[in-house]
Amino acid sequence: MKRMKKQQNNFSIKNKIEISRRTLLYSSAASLIPASLNAESIRDGSPSWMTTPGKTFSEYGFPAQQEINTKREILQPYEEYAPGTGVSMTPLEKLEGIITPNGLHFERSHNGIPAIDPLQHELLIHGLVERPLIFKTEDLLKYPMQTRTYFIECAGNSFYNSNAFPIAVDRTCGTIHGLISTSEWTGIPLKLILSEAGIKKEAKWILAEGSDAAAMSRSIPLEKALDDILIALYQNGERIRPEQGYPMRLVVPGWEGNINIKWLRRIKITKFPTHTKDETSKYSDLLPNGKSLQFTFPMEVKSVITQPSAGSKLLKKGPKHITGLAWSGFGKITKVEISTDKGKTWKLAILEGNNQPLTPVRYRFNWNWEGQECSLQSRATDSSKNKQPIRSEWSKQYGLGQMYHNNSIQSWRITPKGQIINEYL
Amino acid sequence: MKRMKKQQNNFSIKNKIEISRRTLLYSSAASLIPASLNAESIRDGSPSWMTTPGKTFSEYGFPAQQEINTKREILQPYEEYAPGTGVSMTPLEKLEGIITPNGLHFERSHNGIPAIDPLQHELLIHGLVERPLIFKTEDLLKYPMQTRTYFIECAGNSFYNSNAFPIAVDRTCGTIHGLISTSEWTGIPLKLILSEAGIKKEAKWILAEGSDAAAMSRSIPLEKALDDILIALYQNGERIRPEQGYPMRLVVPGWEGNINIKWLRRIKITKFPTHTKDETSKYSDLLPNGKSLQFTFPMEVKSVITQPSAGSKLLKKGPKHITGLAWSGFGKITKVEISTDKGKTWKLAILEGNNQPLTPVRYRFNWNWEGQECSLQSRATDSSKNKQPIRSEWSKQYGLGQMYHNNSIQSWRITPKGQIINEYL
Repeated sequence: MKRMKKQQNNFSIKNKIEISRRTLLYSSAASLIPASLNAESIRDGSPSWMTTPGKTFSEYGFPAQQEINTKREILQPYEEYAPGTGVSMTPLEKLEGIITPNGLHFERSHNGIPAIDPLQHELLIHGLVERPLIFKTEDLLKYPMQTRTYFIECAGNSFYNSNAFPIAVDRTCGTIHGLISTSEWTGIPLKLILSEAGIKKEAKWILAEGSDAAAMSRSIPLEKALDDILIALYQNGERIRPEQGYPMRLVVPGWEGNINIKWLRRIKITKFPTHTKDETSKYSDLLPNGKSLQFTFPMEVKSVITQPSAGSKLLKKGPKHITGLAWSGFGKITKVEISTDKGKTWKLAILEGNNQPLTPVRYRFNWNWEGQECSLQSRATDSSKNKQPIRSEWSKQYGLGQMYHNNSIQSWRITPKGQIINEYL
Repeated sequence: MKRMKKQQNNFSIKNKIEISRRTLLYSSAASLIPASLNAESIRDGSPSWMTTPGKTFSEYGFPAQQEINTKREILQPYEEYAPGTGVSMTPLEKLEGIITPNGLHFERSHNGIPAIDPLQHELLIHGLVERPLIFKTEDLLKYPMQTRTYFIECAGNSFYNSNAFPIAVDRTCGTIHGLISTSEWTGIPLKLILSEAGIKKEAKWILAEGSDAAAMSRSIPLEKALDDILIALYQNGERIRPEQGYPMRLVVPGWEGNINIKWLRRIKITKFPTHTKDETSKYSDLLPNGKSLQFTFPMEVKSVITQPSAGSKLLKKGPKHITGLAWSGFGKITKVEISTDKGKTWKLAILEGNNQPLTPVRYRFNWNWEGQECSLQSRATDSSKNKQPIRSEWSKQYGLGQMYHNNSIQSWRITPKGQIINEYL
């Protein structure tokens, strides 16, 4: 038992559950072979796949066929006449760690994925500059680069739990919250490219425009452009994929997803914001008094329990490993707390890894389910002292129908039968 | 010029190159629009891909068609009768950052990739244990997990530059050194699973066996098993792919690749090493006196310049961004030095990111090529004070034909015409 205790410490310093014995019992039934039996005796020969040579090598690999249900869920509200307008969501409940594999990074397109020829594609830097410049992709690939791990979260993430949905929908974690993904991005600091063009003194903003048929465009304060924005060319090691902006995109750390302009074709240095359609008719925040906030750049502190979560089921009482992701556009995550009693009491989860600003952190918490009806919640706090609000507090800050910037606490209700359901608390 | 200097500091504190102006001139010719012109005037309308709606969403994405040459190179020495025996290499020179996308992680199979049914697959824990146990995949998926970023390097990596090849071959960086890849691995600490079975006092080693047709198996000291070994189930967020050991593999941080047993089916706790075929006839190190070292577990400190590297060409004089990877199985990388004069002088490269033990670090160095014939080399030092040897020093430690554990310094020769060639120095 002594050795058991020592090992538990690696998984949970804060919640001392006698996990070992119970997990063993839990994993048991079909799988536990009593010590009195010889476990080897049940192995009559080798499995069929050991009796014949296996498949050969491939130039580029794919997931196992049996994991085909680990996929993005596609939502195309105008499917009939605009199939490229919508989103696809990362299946958060099926993933682990913090990196999202490139094939599962969420998608948001306003008029489809443009079929860009990278040899023809150009990036124009103009406006309040000394020297307007045009870069080919191959020019940019020769510049000094930086690699950083950041999340990108759509401003509309968690819209299924927003004011537009007064009753909690029966959806999975990925469908509700899967408009966030995390990659290791490599690119050129935007400030280096802007310095090549020479920024004029009166400049205060930039306009960034995509080369898609929607010409997605947003205004960004110059201060951010000179801080940490990247012109990204690589994602998780390889060149950025078509749906992520191939051949190049902006990565604007911690800020609303749609500012991270994909298929980047133009940066204009300006004195004022440009007030594009995507920052006036869309991506503004409706207040209770009917007015709107135009620019809400950083994404707020947030967390979500990815496992166990809606759509899965607890099959029996016993120890459960709770895990999820927490992130903030305002700094790094300082703590994540877990409640299993509708927010009455909170216990600290373990934060894993290096925990960098603007990078999600995975948290872990070992818990014992006694079979009772209860609610699982996580609540994150960031280094700027922001804390996630409960849903009703979040909701009343905004008008009816507000769908953006929903960082409220997610609650998963567990029924006595172990079913897990999205709920509003 | 002042602003330029400030910006350079972000990329290179140690080597102060006037990068901005020169890079601008370098990137110029076709692409630089003189300030006297209106850069916008060359844009007659929109590119074709902006005039029509783009492609719609997908459940799982793939790289751009134009990047099809970013692929693993396959080497099957016995292709006719054993096509699943060999390797495929990560194209290091085409990648950035430290994460290897799952589709490009190097492969090493001894008899092909087994077509395992994850519902049938079992992991047996037996030998010197209190309770022999059998786990189904679904049992393991419920255990507490950990996520860590580690490299896996084949003991035979860089064999093209080993004693078996007395003359430098004309190959790319990925072909010579691409039997190393890096992933964010998520899995269960092996010590937790072993503690479920109860380890007997006399135990000192484990035997780990794969479920492939070669039944790849290796002996590992119990001490390492109780330290940091994972039974990995996820790679870069998603379930491990078939060629990486689906449904589960060992990850043995910092140690020889083939100890990281794929398709893991069995762990036997033993008093002595088992002396399997893969640690006697193979994966032993031939010494000059004809004897062999049987167990050489950690991979040595190493680095390689990935860009620019063999097979690419410097098109003109001017500033060049040198970048590469450094790693060690003995700790973390403390410094990487660059030489451009055949090892006479060395300058410090910038180490990027968090730089954790047993995780590769990307390094960057800005350099100006004056058009001269020269040699590019990088040399890494780790926290255990190990430093990469030059090739001749490395070579003389071993017998003729020794191909494993080659961590010698790579030298890329640059000809006056800018061609880059593998060379022995």
